Amino acid sequence: MERITASIITIGDELLIGQVIDTNSAWMSQELNKIGVWVHYRVAVGDVWNDIWNALEEAGKRSNIILITGGLGPTADDITKPLLCKYFDGKMIVDEQALQNIKTIFKKLNRPLIERNVKQAEVPDTCTVIQNKRGTAPGMWFEKYAKVFVSMPGVPHEMKGIMTDDVLPRLLQQFNMPYIGHRTLLTAGAGESFLAELIKDWEALLPSNIKLAYLPNYGLVRLRLTAIGENKNKVEKLLDNEFGKLKILTKEALVAEEDISLEKLIGRLLKERGKTVAAAESCTGGYIAHLLTSVPGSSAYFYGSVVSYDNSIKENLLNVPEAIIHEEGAVSEETVTYMIKGVLEIMKTDFAVAVSGIMGPDGGAQEKPVGTVWIAAGNIEKTEAQKFFFRFDRQRNIELTAMYALNLLRQFILKN
Amino acid sequence: MERITASIITIGDELLIGQVIDTNSAWMSQELNKIGVWVHYRVAVGDVWNDIWNALEEAGKRSNIILITGGLGPTADDITKPLLCKYFDGKMIVDEQALQNIKTIFKKLNRPLIERNVKQAEVPDTCTVIQNKRGTAPGMWFEKYAKVFVSMPGVPHEMKGIMTDDVLPRLLQQFNMPYIGHRTLLTAGAGESFLAELIKDWEALLPSNIKLAYLPNYGLVRLRLTAIGENKNKVEKLLDNEFGKLKILTKEALVAEEDISLEKLIGRLLKERGKTVAAAESCTGGYIAHLLTSVPGSSAYFYGSVVSYDNSIKENLLNVPEAIIHEEGAVSEETVTYMIKGVLEIMKTDFAVAVSGIMGPDGGAQEKPVGTVWIAAGNIEKTEAQKFFFRFDRQRNIELTAMYALNLLRQFILKN
Repeated sequence: MERITASIITIGDELLIGQVIDTNSAWMSQELNKIGVWVHYRVAVGDVWNDIWNALEEAGKRSNIILITGGLGPTADDITKPLLCKYFDGKMIVDEQALQNIKTIFKKLNRPLIERNVKQAEVPDTCTVIQNKRGTAPGMWFEKYAKVFVSMPGVPHEMKGIMTDDVLPRLLQQFNMPYIGHRTLLTAGAGESFLAELIKDWEALLPSNIKLAYLPNYGLVRLRLTAIGENKNKVEKLLDNEFGKLKILTKEALVAEEDISLEKLIGRLLKERGKTVAAAESCTGGYIAHLLTSVPGSSAYFYGSVVSYDNSIKENLLNVPEAIIHEEGAVSEETVTYMIKGVLEIMKTDFAVAVSGIMGPDGGAQEKPVGTVWIAAGNIEKTEAQKFFFRFDRQRNIELTAMYALNLLRQFILKN
Repeated sequence: MERITASIITIGDELLIGQVIDTNSAWMSQELNKIGVWVHYRVAVGDVWNDIWNALEEAGKRSNIILITGGLGPTADDITKPLLCKYFDGKMIVDEQALQNIKTIFKKLNRPLIERNVKQAEVPDTCTVIQNKRGTAPGMWFEKYAKVFVSMPGVPHEMKGIMTDDVLPRLLQQFNMPYIGHRTLLTAGAGESFLAELIKDWEALLPSNIKLAYLPNYGLVRLRLTAIGENKNKVEKLLDNEFGKLKILTKEALVAEEDISLEKLIGRLLKERGKTVAAAESCTGGYIAHLLTSVPGSSAYFYGSVVSYDNSIKENLLNVPEAIIHEEGAVSEETVTYMIKGVLEIMKTDFAVAVSGIMGPDGGAQEKPVGTVWIAAGNIEKTEAQKFFFRFDRQRNIELTAMYALNLLRQFILKN
């Protein structure tokens, strides 16, 4: 059985110079995967005629579907559209619907419409125009050598809208897709090689149409099974069977039998129990609250956080005794325990999570070097605290601290 | 003059399936750019022999330097190292120093050393080994057809360490780099096409060795000039000259004459003035505090944040009168004004920033639909508030709200 393959081409100097991180490609890959398309090649090129042209040629030889993002903005550094016009042997015409869309947007924004905005309504006459409901640059669908090429703007929410509303449904109509199924489980507290050792005998005997991947991320490791086949029922049955074995083999580290974030998992646990949570954060500076509130509907169980960056806030707002901070230090088991107590009193929630640490690059001392962190989770009756030591840069230390704190909170909720 | 070019090859199914976002490439591009290397091609391929092989072949034809990340982990889905061994006509040998490093790491972690960990010390005998001080997989430096190929682990902090300590200095030694200079300015409140219109006459007359790029991001637009040449002084002089003109042309939207984040800029303004700030956040859920504390040394001016997600916290902790929330709503000018007042009282800082809004997907009403946001900045004497309406998804609404709030805070600090 032949797999339908896709290449993603991202155009723009801003990616190549590293000023922008490419989040589009990951999203597109996920969505294509879900409908049975295997993204086997991703390439980023600058605003350079020959590089774009070659990328199209190579991708056209390699893949059934070529998705192109970027290079369609209203400013002068864009050469993508003239190139597409030439590559697909067209001539430029104004698309009336796209022009109407641009006029409507500028009227809403109350901004004057200028020549370069009008130009965005021009498209090669050899494409099928895909209207952009969220921005001014329309999408363009071309076919050549029995391959599909789609050009979309690089603005993430515009690209996502065009993909979801038009491109994915059209691809499903045009191609006869094989079935691809996934199962993912989440583990915590075990390294990649340790997990590999646990499951090596089972892994060696996996059928050839099923693949295992290790996806480590901030102290968590996801294990993902991917199976492919023509018959959906057979693929799903095979996945259920092997996933069942995998769950048993990894049970000591297993956190969730699905691909879920810790913050979502905690939200679910709290909602199931009708309980609430608050945070008291020093070194994570609001990042734990940010993670918890990134989940839609989190206002049902998350009341708030006291970001007590300065010690005066720990004392005055969270009632950590000055003597404790003076004697034990702001980064200590006693301090995070008082922080739990303090925030529970203020927020009146069922559970609380607290952190205090030194994230670097400055602020370390011989006794408590950069990376020293105390985390705690508790309720009105008791508190559990743990000490960690992270050796990374500030950003990663913050992220790791938040992840371990959320995991401790998860365990505490399960036990209490 | 010939430019030194580089390709980046990223290996791993996890990127192609979209479960991991590629942040390595952006960082590598930035660093290479700084030493005068132009990254003109980035490609991601899966753990598939032919795809990796072809990517090496194509990149080798195209670029002087080929940097490869990923595919070196201890688990069984890795085929990169045997492939490199074959591609560079080597045979696999154990590198004693790498083995010693692995043993030391496992001893520190107090984990048993297993066969697959030992295998990580194996390298092709045709490479120069680059020791990895932060992990178990060593880097490998190959030369073929007068091109340099470097393979590195995909774990970001390991890759960054190897690049900084070894690869970048070696590249500087090996190649005769041209000089590349950049100037970036930050604007707020003006769209990309509006800026383009302001500067089009100047842009049309730019010399051929200088390039302008528009980098829009969350309501801010960065304008970057890049110039290249053999003589550093000439390049810098040219840049100074053109950048001077650009600053004048864009002055009504100009925020900073450099590539800086708003949170860093605010930190600098506060430090210069010896002032402090606190936040009161509802809909951003800690994200503003997270941004402010992502800056090293922010503890000097950022005291903390009250994340008052639940209305009870707004009332009890920030002293927003219940009647105000009842009559005007939690998302109102009156509420954010009281939030400023409340947090200034608690935290005793010079300035405060506050936000309240509806981020979606739920929680909207006819009068106040999803995306409605009130932001405020103030001090003990006065408060300025603004209303916004964002039409995006939850994540983007949160990020935009934070960005506009920080910009309002910046303006308030400048005026007061």
